[in-house]
Order: sequence, then structure tokens, then C-alpha cells
Amino acid sequence: MTAHRWRLDISYDGTEFAGWAIQPGQRTVQGELERWITQVLRVDAPVQLVCAGRTDAGVHARGQVAHVDLDPEAITDDGAILIRRLARVLSDDVVVRSVSRAPDGFDARFAAIWRRYVYRLSDAGTLPDPLLRGHITPLRHRVDLDQMNEAGAGLLGLRDFGAFCRRRGGVGATTVRTLLELSGVRRQAGSLAGVIEFTVRADAFCHSMVRSLMGALVAVGSGRRDHGWLDALMQQAQRVSTLEVMPARGLTLEEVRYAPDDQLHQRAREARATREISRV
Amino acid sequence: MTAHRWRLDISYDGTEFAGWAIQPGQRTVQGELERWITQVLRVDAPVQLVCAGRTDAGVHARGQVAHVDLDPEAITDDGAILIRRLARVLSDDVVVRSVSRAPDGFDARFAAIWRRYVYRLSDAGTLPDPLLRGHITPLRHRVDLDQMNEAGAGLLGLRDFGAFCRRRGGVGATTVRTLLELSGVRRQAGSLAGVIEFTVRADAFCHSMVRSLMGALVAVGSGRRDHGWLDALMQQAQRVSTLEVMPARGLTLEEVRYAPDDQLHQRAREARATREISRV
Repeated sequence: MTAHRWRLDISYDGTEFAGWAIQPGQRTVQGELERWITQVLRVDAPVQLVCAGRTDAGVHARGQVAHVDLDPEAITDDGAILIRRLARVLSDDVVVRSVSRAPDGFDARFAAIWRRYVYRLSDAGTLPDPLLRGHITPLRHRVDLDQMNEAGAGLLGLRDFGAFCRRRGGVGATTVRTLLELSGVRRQAGSLAGVIEFTVRADAFCHSMVRSLMGALVAVGSGRRDHGWLDALMQQAQRVSTLEVMPARGLTLEEVRYAPDDQLHQRAREARATREISRV
Repeated sequence: MTAHRWRLDISYDGTEFAGWAIQPGQRTVQGELERWITQVLRVDAPVQLVCAGRTDAGVHARGQVAHVDLDPEAITDDGAILIRRLARVLSDDVVVRSVSRAPDGFDARFAAIWRRYVYRLSDAGTLPDPLLRGHITPLRHRVDLDQMNEAGAGLLGLRDFGAFCRRRGGVGATTVRTLLELSGVRRQAGSLAGVIEFTVRADAFCHSMVRSLMGALVAVGSGRRDHGWLDALMQQAQRVSTLEVMPARGLTLEEVRYAPDDQLHQRAREARATREISRV
């Protein structure tokens, strides 16, 4: 009897979570979801989720995706009952927005073609809208957005982002990634008026990469560092300890894009192969 | 020596406040602001704020306006220093966005020509975006927005809203108001996609009026009540106890509009006169 793979689309306010990944004695998104899914489906063995982006403590998500493999009889409708049951038991800082049968070859982690994060900054001197303060990082000083965008454009493409990556196990794992987008806009209207939204999009990210990239851009945008410093940084294979990792609060995983259904297998094979290349 | 009147523009997340108005032993917006303004300006007598809309416990504001009268020497710049000092001492759920000299005749309460509130509802069955849950009210059932808008249009104009008003002192105070706008849209895109935003705009509001109006519209939109019921309701001079007051969480005071500078005195005179008319 083959297991059925289900796709879950998940949003959460990361403030009260110690991140996605399960950790003993800590409240984590994975921990909460696995516990409640196991319970509401009344399955014998605890379920295990695999996600697209293992967000750190305090990082938010509007577009997290995960998959779970279940016995065929665990879910007998299209997933709607599981959504309703989870809505009743989960606390209101995490929402399972959709549950659907995953197409053949789907893998939440390896079949993704890119992840899109948005980092929100307020540099206006006053604090951001208090209703939105939980997902915006306030800066004490003004930043020059044009300088930041110029610096960001210079980092695009297939590169080794070793200088921006914290090691997390896996010695020798590659830190080569394809950075597809790194650009900011200052919102002009609405409740986010004045807030800078930086889109950071790549095939995949290594640990702390988004927040370290933002730390580098803020250093340039505030005039503390120049473009030459950033170029020199990119030559480093190992994490640079003077590089600021921006606060988790401003970061939200907004979207994960997957390969078309007929290319899922191929994409997952490629991603596995690339991610396991040694740095040697 | 005449006092100088200053205008303050204020935003707050109402979740942790027992409303605007000062109350002994409670954390209120007015209480926090008066205490800290008195302290950072080092004035002898405690300052007193007058606001445009005395929001209830849990109600938010992005566009609250208040005035305060101060000795001329209390503020010697354009107000920027007070903003900076308040930003350092206030907790991050309340922000004084701007401080400016009030034009002659300005009165935060009486010179306003209208107040605009937005009530946010999520009826999609799933919970709203967890990052925005603090200012959206989730409903268990779907509502018919067209029905709600039709009902809302029928309530516009100069009327006695006694059926929607909780008494708050002032026996005999008028509950006649001019309702200028009461209409909702379902947001199509962005992080609020699917959320219904109801704009409620009037020259002024009596206590609990916005949330009672929303309770009536939700009753119609969910099919529990019809337009005839609403017409009958409008004939009642006293608050109707079966009318649901919607939760504070979904309500935000977004904007207060004042008369042009050269009409402030006249507007304040009119508003005072109207508000003090007896119901007899």
C-alpha cells in the first residue's frame, strides 16, 4: 500500500515560535503541526513534515509549503476536513490555508525552483505603524535605497554565498546559490507608506543568508560600508563574523514556486545533486 | 501668557490598552501619553489631551488626533524633539507620528468634520493571515457582501442612531448623527486578499455605534435578519439589546478630517451646539 503525499500551504506569525524545525522543549511550527495533524487524523505513528524553507526563530511565513506522506485511509476527502479540524485546535498564530494531494514527484524541499522572502525595514525615524510592527524592523537612521539597490544588483547570479552562510551541520555542503532578485522599493501609500520592502529571491538559501545579505545592504545604505567592501566580502568562502545578521522580525517567507507538474521529478533530482556537491 | 495648542497624530495597536480614555488602574492610551508627555517636557502640571475619537478597549487607531495646551516655553522647536523623546520612552504599541502647532481655532474633538473607521472581517472559513490577525475579526460563516452594502446604503444620512448607541453618562445627549459612508469591499489581492473592509464614516459617532452598525450588517449579510428588521431597528430611540456589538479587534480609527483652517472656529461652534441638543 503506497503512501499518499499531501501538500500543505501554511502561514504563521513567527514571533512566538522558536523557528520551523522541531526542537525538544521548544515551541516550533513543525512541532505544533506534526503533533496536531497526528492527533486529528488519529494515525498510529507520528507524522513527519518536510518544508520548503526552515525559517529561524522569529521569522514569519505567508507562503510556507510542506509535504507529508500518509496512509491512503488517513484522509478520505480532498483535505477540507483536515483544514477545518486544524483551524479548531491550532492557536491563531499558525494557519494551514490549504491541503491538497501532491502531484507525482512533488517534494516541498527539492522540487522548488525558487523561494521568495520579503524583508521589511522602517528608517523613517518614527516607528512603523504599530499594527504592523511585528513584521517590520525599525532602523535608527535613514538608508539610501538607491545605493542598496545598486549593491543588490551586483550580487545577482550563480555565486558562492559562503560569506553570508552560517554553518548548520553538513560540513562541506555547498553554499553556491543562484540569487534571482535582491531589490527594494519604498512603499508610497497605504498603511506601509514609507516602509522599505526588499525582495530576496533565490533557488534556495543557506542558513542566515537572507538576513546576512540584508545586513550587508543596510551597511552600504547607511554609508558605513562601500561597494568595494561588498566585493571583497563576496571573495570570502567562510562566513564573515563582522557581518550583521538583521533581526528575524522583519523577515517573511512570502512564496515558494515549484516546477511544472511534468518536471517535478527532474527538478528534485537536480536540486538534490546540486545541494550535495562538496565545496572541495 | 496664552497657552500654545499642539496637534498630535497618533497610531496604536489597541490590543493591550483598556481604550483611549484614562481610567484609574488601567493601561490606557491617554494615560500613557499624558504621563510621558508631562515627564519628557518636564512641565509642572500634568498635561491633558483631548482626542477626536475615544476608542474602546481593544480598538486600534492609525489616524487618531489629539490636542494639548502647553505653556509657550514647553516646546521651543517645531515639535520634532518631543516626537523623538516619546519614541524612546513609549512602548512600541503606540506611536506619536507627528506633533505640530495647531492652527487658530483647532479643536481635536469639535473641529472635526468627519471620522473614518474601517472594520475588517474574514469570512473565508480559514483564519486570516496570522501576521494581520490582531486587527481582523474572523467569522464562522460566509456573509453576503451585496446584502450588507444594500443595507448599509439604507442607513446613510442625518438620522437618530439611538438604537445603536450605548449610553455613556450625558442623559439626554443627542444620538442624531450624519452617516456619510457605510460600505464594504472584498480585497482581491495582497496579504488581505479575501478580507472584507467596511468603511464607516460619519460626522461623529456615539458610543459603540460603529460596532453595533457592523453587528446589524453582519446579521443581514449572514441571512439571520432582513432589511425589514433593520428598518424597524432604526425606529427605536433606545439601544436594542439583542443587537450584537462586533468585537473590538476588527475596528481601526483610520482618519479624522478637519475643517479648513479659516472655518475651524465656526465648525467647532456648530459641533458643540449640535452635540448638546437635548433629545426631548
